Amino acid sequence: MCEANAYLVTEDGQEELLLEAVDKLNVEGETIRLVNIFGRQEIVRARIKALALVDHRIVLEKVHD
Amino acid sequence: MCEANAYLVTEDGQEELLLEAVDKLNVEGETIRLVNIFGRQEIVRARIKALALVDHRIVLEKVHD
Repeated sequence: MCEANAYLVTEDGQEELLLEAVDKLNVEGETIRLVNIFGRQEIVRARIKALALVDHRIVLEKVHD
Repeated sequence: MCEANAYLVTEDGQEELLLEAVDKLNVEGETIRLVNIFGRQEIVRARIKALALVDHRIVLEKVHD
């Protein structure tokens, strides 16, 4: 399977795991909806910073007000 | 391998293949840089609309001035 783990960059620059085994991701304005292969869903106010698909990584950063 | 094909949505709503076998993608403001597993690079003014990783799909939409 070719899913990826989604990490959210925190205020102090660390990456925390938001959702593993992500299949689908949809961007709706400043909101990102992720669904993994097990049907688990996360919705975050963030933007995509980078993908590294061979390493199974999606890196998101928070949208600040 | 878990790369994905990147498609760019055109003005008339069609998807055209921008780059196949994408490994790395970096978002730099309104610019997206994609590099595939063969080392080929594309730089576009676009934003990510959706990912469907099990289907090996990245969908981008153009940023309009």
